Amino acid sequence: MIGVYDSGYGGLSVLKHLQEALPERDFVYLGDSGRAPYGGRDVHTILDFAEQCVERLFEEGCRVIVVACHTVSCVALRHLQQRYCPVDGDRRILGVTIPGAEAAIATGAQHIAVVATARTVASGTWTTELHKLARVRVTERAAPLLAGIVEEGWEDTDLARSAVERYVADLHDADTIVLGCTHYPLLERAFARALGDGVAVLDPGPVVAERLAAWLQRHPDFDAPGAGSLRVLCSGDPAAFARHGARFLGAPLPLVEPITEVAGRLAHRHPDDAPRGQVVR
Amino acid sequence: MIGVYDSGYGGLSVLKHLQEALPERDFVYLGDSGRAPYGGRDVHTILDFAEQCVERLFEEGCRVIVVACHTVSCVALRHLQQRYCPVDGDRRILGVTIPGAEAAIATGAQHIAVVATARTVASGTWTTELHKLARVRVTERAAPLLAGIVEEGWEDTDLARSAVERYVADLHDADTIVLGCTHYPLLERAFARALGDGVAVLDPGPVVAERLAAWLQRHPDFDAPGAGSLRVLCSGDPAAFARHGARFLGAPLPLVEPITEVAGRLAHRHPDDAPRGQVVR
Repeated sequence: MIGVYDSGYGGLSVLKHLQEALPERDFVYLGDSGRAPYGGRDVHTILDFAEQCVERLFEEGCRVIVVACHTVSCVALRHLQQRYCPVDGDRRILGVTIPGAEAAIATGAQHIAVVATARTVASGTWTTELHKLARVRVTERAAPLLAGIVEEGWEDTDLARSAVERYVADLHDADTIVLGCTHYPLLERAFARALGDGVAVLDPGPVVAERLAAWLQRHPDFDAPGAGSLRVLCSGDPAAFARHGARFLGAPLPLVEPITEVAGRLAHRHPDDAPRGQVVR
Repeated sequence: MIGVYDSGYGGLSVLKHLQEALPERDFVYLGDSGRAPYGGRDVHTILDFAEQCVERLFEEGCRVIVVACHTVSCVALRHLQQRYCPVDGDRRILGVTIPGAEAAIATGAQHIAVVATARTVASGTWTTELHKLARVRVTERAAPLLAGIVEEGWEDTDLARSAVERYVADLHDADTIVLGCTHYPLLERAFARALGDGVAVLDPGPVVAERLAAWLQRHPDFDAPGAGSLRVLCSGDPAAFARHGARFLGAPLPLVEPITEVAGRLAHRHPDDAPRGQVVR
């Protein structure tokens, strides 16, 4: 089984491409929606959450995990790999930043803009990875409202178009804009409209899927035939997750299994048990 | 000194009224902007943060703390009072929900709508407090995008008006709308415009200030003459805090003193020391 970890349901926009590229593999998706968005959080909080989530996916039987969340991939991927994936071990954790950076460079762009969460931009990881590959101009732009707009289901509204226009107003001289958050593919039309024909809009999702397929071919020990199954776990409200998630996956979700944050840790408590009113402990 | 605690700079819209009502008292404001918004977080995470913040204000010498944040006031106030304020002790923690509920009932409204964060609405505390006072119809509405829109400084844009209209579209039969988040007073015009003349828009800030002044008169042991001074601490970027905060306070802020979240706790680290790139620990 291949694990896919995201801070919420945004990563289902990546899973969609993974399933298309690898239709006979089995996937387990973990969306930490109860603690999303990660984009404004402290790095050590993100490392804590990421440890809990990948540990859970390993417990579910995954040996390969794709970190679909750009914030986690930019901040915590190296930590996760060093902690859980010794060179001769039987576990691997892959990210989205390097495939995305390579795809952006492959467009031949001289000026690449990356639109992402505040934490992703604060990490500077996109600039670091792009500059390893080529001498290009890089502009990173934090767009903290966009994920929330997509979470409300408002991606096809004037409000969404107005917000995108505000964030990219001074990026018209970029050659390529990278959608550096898994929520943004649902805003691809708003980006294309705000930027016009002169700027390519790049969703890293498809290239992440291509790279995973190629990686599994090169590492047959980590590959296993499957039945095209999908399990979905989430730490927030499973009903809302199923409803919203279908927009990202482009298909109905299977039964969403709830896991919950209790006192800062992931736990099995059902969200209906969440306390109401004043909480005293 | 009187402490004022908020999840970010929104509570400065409450502090403005406190300073007007009590111009000669000294205030210490703590805005946990590095971990804001609280509105989507787990209750136990909010209790952890609230404990850290009020402990810090007690350390700064405050004996009376106003919890300006509606999310904390709705979820954690009783816990904070039981933990830190024994009946015969010399510390008091006051909230904003009960003063706000009393002011809403005083308008004579039969149908009161409260617009607030997702966590505030999930707590049901507004409904509980309003129903203790009168048999009125209460509608609670979560508006998770509005605080972020105000944080971007976009409160006077079509985008803000459009978002407010979406959240209140079915609330036109309310008599009074309570602005149940300290960010929303900056959207007061957008609410008034979206709702028309038939609906009163209530900002609890002024009544919270009146109640604090009256409470200090009744509890002179907790009162102390001051020099009208203000200290401001924040856990996020102090430059951004000063820039945004002035819009909420209606006046320039004094030097903002940084405190930072390190591994889930408040600490004194300067935000410029925040790690960049991949973080391995």
